[in-house]
Amino acid sequence: MMSCAINQRKKGFTQPMKEEETAMNLDDKVKALKEHQKKLKAYNHAASLLFYDASTSMPAGAAESMSATTGVLSGEIYSLTVNPEFKTLLEDLYGQRQELDFQTRREVEELNEEQVKMAKVPKEEVVAMEEAQTKANHYWEVAKKNNDFSIFAPHLEKLIAMKKRYAEYINPGGDVYDTLLNEFEKGMTKAQMDSFFDALREKLVPLIQAVGAVQQPDTSFLTGPFDLEAQKELSEYVMDVMGIDKERCILRETEHPFTIEFSKNDVRITTKYLEEDLTSNLYSVIHESGHGMYELSIDDALQFSVLGAGATTAIHESQSRLWENYIGRSLPFCQLIFPKVKELFPAQMKDVTAEAFYRVVNVAKPSLIRTDADELTYALHVMVRYEIEKRMFDGTLSVSELPAEWNRLYKEYLGIDVPDDTRGVLQDAHWAGGAFGYFPSYALGTAYSAQIYAVLREAVDVDACCKKGDFAPVCQWLTEKIYRHGMLYTADELIQMTCGKPFNPAYYVDYLEKKFKNLYAL
Amino acid sequence: MMSCAINQRKKGFTQPMKEEETAMNLDDKVKALKEHQKKLKAYNHAASLLFYDASTSMPAGAAESMSATTGVLSGEIYSLTVNPEFKTLLEDLYGQRQELDFQTRREVEELNEEQVKMAKVPKEEVVAMEEAQTKANHYWEVAKKNNDFSIFAPHLEKLIAMKKRYAEYINPGGDVYDTLLNEFEKGMTKAQMDSFFDALREKLVPLIQAVGAVQQPDTSFLTGPFDLEAQKELSEYVMDVMGIDKERCILRETEHPFTIEFSKNDVRITTKYLEEDLTSNLYSVIHESGHGMYELSIDDALQFSVLGAGATTAIHESQSRLWENYIGRSLPFCQLIFPKVKELFPAQMKDVTAEAFYRVVNVAKPSLIRTDADELTYALHVMVRYEIEKRMFDGTLSVSELPAEWNRLYKEYLGIDVPDDTRGVLQDAHWAGGAFGYFPSYALGTAYSAQIYAVLREAVDVDACCKKGDFAPVCQWLTEKIYRHGMLYTADELIQMTCGKPFNPAYYVDYLEKKFKNLYAL
Repeated sequence: MMSCAINQRKKGFTQPMKEEETAMNLDDKVKALKEHQKKLKAYNHAASLLFYDASTSMPAGAAESMSATTGVLSGEIYSLTVNPEFKTLLEDLYGQRQELDFQTRREVEELNEEQVKMAKVPKEEVVAMEEAQTKANHYWEVAKKNNDFSIFAPHLEKLIAMKKRYAEYINPGGDVYDTLLNEFEKGMTKAQMDSFFDALREKLVPLIQAVGAVQQPDTSFLTGPFDLEAQKELSEYVMDVMGIDKERCILRETEHPFTIEFSKNDVRITTKYLEEDLTSNLYSVIHESGHGMYELSIDDALQFSVLGAGATTAIHESQSRLWENYIGRSLPFCQLIFPKVKELFPAQMKDVTAEAFYRVVNVAKPSLIRTDADELTYALHVMVRYEIEKRMFDGTLSVSELPAEWNRLYKEYLGIDVPDDTRGVLQDAHWAGGAFGYFPSYALGTAYSAQIYAVLREAVDVDACCKKGDFAPVCQWLTEKIYRHGMLYTADELIQMTCGKPFNPAYYVDYLEKKFKNLYAL
Repeated sequence: MMSCAINQRKKGFTQPMKEEETAMNLDDKVKALKEHQKKLKAYNHAASLLFYDASTSMPAGAAESMSATTGVLSGEIYSLTVNPEFKTLLEDLYGQRQELDFQTRREVEELNEEQVKMAKVPKEEVVAMEEAQTKANHYWEVAKKNNDFSIFAPHLEKLIAMKKRYAEYINPGGDVYDTLLNEFEKGMTKAQMDSFFDALREKLVPLIQAVGAVQQPDTSFLTGPFDLEAQKELSEYVMDVMGIDKERCILRETEHPFTIEFSKNDVRITTKYLEEDLTSNLYSVIHESGHGMYELSIDDALQFSVLGAGATTAIHESQSRLWENYIGRSLPFCQLIFPKVKELFPAQMKDVTAEAFYRVVNVAKPSLIRTDADELTYALHVMVRYEIEKRMFDGTLSVSELPAEWNRLYKEYLGIDVPDDTRGVLQDAHWAGGAFGYFPSYALGTAYSAQIYAVLREAVDVDACCKKGDFAPVCQWLTEKIYRHGMLYTADELIQMTCGKPFNPAYYVDYLEKKFKNLYAL
């Protein structure tokens, strides 16, 4: 006979709140600030868990009740930030910020900036934007499925208009696209992104053309089928090789791979297994483990702080790409893991060498889908989206012109013809979710990693780490320079502190030129 | 190349709260009441998901941050209930409750009762009790592992003293154990439980002795090993047979099986697979599916209501037991599922008939562990705990005397010697969690099901349902009589409405006598 475990959850009879106090001194105010952040952290933990559960476990029919709960929690997070008492507290602390320790001062600045920003946008506008995004996302899915851009177009138009208004609210008179870029990459401007992409375009477009003109290696041994259980073993092996602490980080399966953190001691990464593709999962796991290692290594002091997160979207991406491409697709790393690959897939790898494996995981070839793109061509996919976003927001490109312009740019940069909108302008979910200005972070992050990787190699013998299968020195260095700081510093500050100079895209271009000229004997 | 999915969770820039209003009319008040319950539901959803995630997925190192978040959410749930504005609202509505529709009136009564109760217990007491339970639970684990009751004893003593104080706060001058029983089974008294257990003791003790004196069936074909994948297939099959809607209910694995609901469209049940035991998982799944079916069938109107839950602990248990024992361990049900069992485990079931399978899943034999007990002896395990709890709280049994008394009662009721405290007084987690007065619900629930099952069989041809493998008529009847009402009615009212008469334990005793006299040819 079985019995049901005790579940007294519903009682909720626990840990009451503290009484409000009046006339607080600075210590009390700081204490209140820390309590506020603890609460914020808890709400975000719960909301993130709902998202994660929806992706990994939730039964299909539960979507609506999940949304209802997420809605309530989001509303509470909003209220926490905009409520008048907290506003007063923040204003007081902001006025006294010179008296605070560095971390607390940064917390006050960060929260104050968010507070000021949120206060500028009327509530009705926020709600309307939320609703429009949910609707747009639905119609984007329908449009993509039916290869019919016209289904999505009116919703995209509406979102663009709303985002323009939003940008005007939070940064009146400022450049709209600069304002949107700042949502993801603080301090970033169109001018900076232009010169970044100009540098890329100049070198990468001819390089890709040159690569396209020569013989590709034989990839036939990578066609599978690759047993899923063996692939799962490879995932766990690779996480162990990287030194991921599995007491604090677990791997699960989802439709799209992602990393999410609930606390620095609870990081979840996900992957997708394809029977016909070994490298898709392999490099997903390395990529997400890179994100994960960052979150796992943020300083304990930031655990309940708003600063306990990756510095910016691009800095986060720099850490996943550093592991995925700079280390993970290097010859020494391929030599390290290839014996395990061969052990798990003996039939397919019978006549294959580690060097041949290395060649094949580095095949560069223009393709239609950004998320399937290789290391060399990836940035050009982002560049197409950047060009289009800029022009959507400066008014020189209308939504109806979008598909044609998309196809034109794919032809110009990547030399390929886009056969339909499903594999063209409709491929990504970002715009439907209102995330304009997000794409550039992907390319910028990869470029950051090139520069960080160059400095890392000066300090740590990365090839020796690959030979020994021990990446502790790499992790230690990255923790020291990047991970532990969380959001204490801006992206610019982190690059300056780590590299001793400002960000320079030449590292990225040089790296790609050297690697791919060598690979393709150009 | 893989990229990370967009995760803008941290922004939390969504669905702001509504402005406070003054001078509300009755409609406004009811609206506020409904909003309050929606919020409560969302917090409980999030808190329950944290618990579920901790049991099914969470990495080991994440326990502390999980607790921190649970603590914040519990504190918010507490604040929601005890805050002065809500108190005023509730008092107003309680005063006007005759003007409310039935559901709303019941909601007001339920929330008001909880409010009044919570207001009576000092906050410090609640916090101290929470902490003492966490500590006691830890030391109970250590004590159980080391078979050393003395490690747990001082913590148990403290919990008993605290629960006595707690009972005095919420029901001054009342009988302490009656007050504690009421926490799980509203309206239940020691006097009622006494006469219930007296009726059981009188008939069951001699019946168990008689069964013990005769030949047991051959159980050797149930020793395994049973392939785990095949067992998983059996679980899904049984859920399908019962008609569980898998769009809204999923099965996962945990150390201890349980059911948890996040909404009526999101019910999670869990089981544990043992290679050496086929029936443990099989009847866990049927049991938890019974709990699940109840939650899945509560009326839509109660979805965001505090009444959207099982009526009482015992009524919930009556629904799991009805499926597990009354239907699931009947001969027609065994005949229905046995072909599938044989198909999945052809080697072990080669020479076995459905009738032999039925005999074996109904073997009655006194044993040490409550959760492993069979249908016939189960109630006596509960009776031991009930006798002890009563005497712990009326002061006639000290904690130091507990182990000896436990062993004496096991000898008296079940005729067996308890070899150590790990398999004796330390086996259950309930007391360490402060759940005194919970155990009786298990036996009471099973007795409720006997009476409900008798009426069900008059209305529905259950054996024919087993023959056809279609339980829709059973589900429909149970939904009509029990499920849909949630907490709209008390346990007494539900039994009266369903059975046309009050609860009578004779149904339970008669059922057991008839079934086991027949099985053992007594």
